[in-house]
Amino acid sequence: MKIITLLTDFGSFYPAQMKGVILSQLAKKAQDITFVDIAHDIPPQDVRAGAFALLSSARYFPPGTIHICVVDPGVGTKRLGLVVESGGQLFVGPDNGLLMPAAKSLGTPGNPLQAYKIGPLEDLSLSHGFPVPSPASNTFHGRDVFAPVAALLALGQSPAGIGPRVRPKDLNFTEAKKTDWGFEATVIYVDRFGNLILNMRTVPEFQLSLLGIKLRRVATYAQARRIEPLITLGSHGFAEIAVNDGNAAEAFCLKAGDRVELEEI
Amino acid sequence: MKIITLLTDFGSFYPAQMKGVILSQLAKKAQDITFVDIAHDIPPQDVRAGAFALLSSARYFPPGTIHICVVDPGVGTKRLGLVVESGGQLFVGPDNGLLMPAAKSLGTPGNPLQAYKIGPLEDLSLSHGFPVPSPASNTFHGRDVFAPVAALLALGQSPAGIGPRVRPKDLNFTEAKKTDWGFEATVIYVDRFGNLILNMRTVPEFQLSLLGIKLRRVATYAQARRIEPLITLGSHGFAEIAVNDGNAAEAFCLKAGDRVELEEI
Amino acid sequence: MKIITLLTDFGSFYPAQMKGVILSQLAKKAQDITFVDIAHDIPPQDVRAGAFALLSSARYFPPGTIHICVVDPGVGTKRLGLVVESGGQLFVGPDNGLLMPAAKSLGTPGNPLQAYKIGPLEDLSLSHGFPVPSPASNTFHGRDVFAPVAALLALGQSPAGIGPRVRPKDLNFTEAKKTDWGFEATVIYVDRFGNLILNMRTVPEFQLSLLGIKLRRVATYAQARRIEPLITLGSHGFAEIAVNDGNAAEAFCLKAGDRVELEEI
Repeated sequence: MKIITLLTDFGSFYPAQMKGVILSQLAKKAQDITFVDIAHDIPPQDVRAGAFALLSSARYFPPGTIHICVVDPGVGTKRLGLVVESGGQLFVGPDNGLLMPAAKSLGTPGNPLQAYKIGPLEDLSLSHGFPVPSPASNTFHGRDVFAPVAALLALGQSPAGIGPRVRPKDLNFTEAKKTDWGFEATVIYVDRFGNLILNMRTVPEFQLSLLGIKLRRVATYAQARRIEPLITLGSHGFAEIAVNDGNAAEAFCLKAGDRVELEEI
Repeated sequence: MKIITLLTDFGSFYPAQMKGVILSQLAKKAQDITFVDIAHDIPPQDVRAGAFALLSSARYFPPGTIHICVVDPGVGTKRLGLVVESGGQLFVGPDNGLLMPAAKSLGTPGNPLQAYKIGPLEDLSLSHGFPVPSPASNTFHGRDVFAPVAALLALGQSPAGIGPRVRPKDLNFTEAKKTDWGFEATVIYVDRFGNLILNMRTVPEFQLSLLGIKLRRVATYAQARRIEPLITLGSHGFAEIAVNDGNAAEAFCLKAGDRVELEEI
Repeated sequence: MKIITLLTDFGSFYPAQMKGVILSQLAKKAQDITFVDIAHDIPPQDVRAGAFALLSSARYFPPGTIHICVVDPGVGTKRLGLVVESGGQLFVGPDNGLLMPAAKSLGTPGNPLQAYKIGPLEDLSLSHGFPVPSPASNTFHGRDVFAPVAALLALGQSPAGIGPRVRPKDLNFTEAKKTDWGFEATVIYVDRFGNLILNMRTVPEFQLSLLGIKLRRVATYAQARRIEPLITLGSHGFAEIAVNDGNAAEAFCLKAGDRVELEEI
């Protein structure tokens, strides 16, 4: 059983086309597949939000998993396509940093990630006998490039055979900055509960406020009173501002990408 | 082939983490799995709406199905985690009533549901050799408790081996109340068409109105005129107020949890 | 491995009931299944938008795929249910045109599509020994008619055995009309990026404007400047109006079904 996950900002029906492309290749070889959709509602073109969702999720999958990840503002430009191998898992997507936080988190000093550039699809196609759209769409490499490459990998192709090794573009979730009055942080993701996930890997020991409103430091939402704003270390390992039984994004009028100033009080 | 369904209020990417945890366990034993997402857009923390969606859906699945259900305002408190067995199906989730309407609907007088408390995960872990996050997250038992338990069940663990029998907390979809003028009911779910699903298992024989507007009693939407408000017995077995070719939730400004007074006219 | 796709306007939890019905039949015969959700967020009752999503997606699936498609304003009326066979794929759904653009696109002059009317389910049920809800719901044929029929087909039933051949209702994505000043077109779909997909299979060679705003003709979004309105041939083969790094549906206040006048400038 091969596991392929998908993470995109595509919404509906485009991800199904990617699955169709993969199934068409694998059906011929009777290779079973289990698809897992990580997310298709990443805010459009928000590479950092996509990278966060992938970083949070990849570690829970077993070795051998192939992740196809497409948040790709540069589609149709000269940006490279990549296969990245790390910790026994494979990541396929654009070379814009999307894959990097997850891939780096799975690597070890003795066994760091390896990145390979996806070469001309026509060449891969010739050597593996699978059909390739000609020309590939200028707007949908998820279906016309990354899905066929993932199918090849699922059928046993080694990443090194996909193309030459390259140094991929990096992406840093910059740690929130300590300032004179507290922290300057960025909202990297807003989840369905309106919780604001920050680029901070710890919750400071001292009392913080946001926009003049005290944030209660808690270990679990239920320790706060109803409608009380709080800050906690989320299950993903990042600090998160929430409102118990409420919606912090609405209460503070904040969205992914916004800067926040956390004051020490 | 083992079937595992998921029903949560998590939105995207957290459910994928639960699937990753399960696949990581099952991959080792070459146990195939078919995941079915029932819903991940239950209104946040709305246990009753989640219980309705589960009640409506569970009966269509075959014996042996495992349902992981997480709408869990009490996560991180002392509330128990449960495995409930009923009608040959298994339900895993918090002890807040979420599982009960579905589980009760599958039981029979001679073979009622059985509920088991999920014991300390460390103990389960020792006896089954699967890794358990230590400590379990205070905010995401879906991934750190319920998913590992579901994996154990999928691998053949008996529910009785998960923990001691307990009496679970119940949840009643209170039947709408007959009043002097008609019915007092509650909207338990609003579906994607804006149909208002009520806590009534029958549609009364007499003519009803809502907010002064007559609701046509029909057997099928198409029996109403365009934009005509109607009441019908939905395919889920509950009364439902709809607007033919329109959106009743918008027309009446109602949402899940709202009380409605249906007047006999 | 059998592939079954689902395309509906149902939102959540109703599609899971359809999968449960299918799994209940297939589990008995140990027939493996791979479900692919094409979309469940088709605008409510928008048959044309559903037909577009299906047309765009079906070609990527391998022969033998079964597509269950339900956008069904006429449920509960005398409209027929259909099984359509084309290009080795099968389509199951209402006879309202939804299936036709996709089915026609897969047929060839020598091997055109064949359509079969779904007969009384009681008869099918008797001959195949599967249980059928009695009576079938008046509001949810997706679960009570189309899902059981798809299960039968997945188990090897020939489409011709489902019912007599019929001539299905057609649906044309009328090509945009050439007018004195340019084109009169219709928005058939708005994707998650706010891109407006038009009923035009080519992008005219000359310069166009919409509401007085020039649309840059490009081969890829990245050729436009930031926030520049553009027109391009989308990966689905239809003309699409977009705003680079923006949202055309919001910028032009347009939605699926709206008419647009494209002026030659």
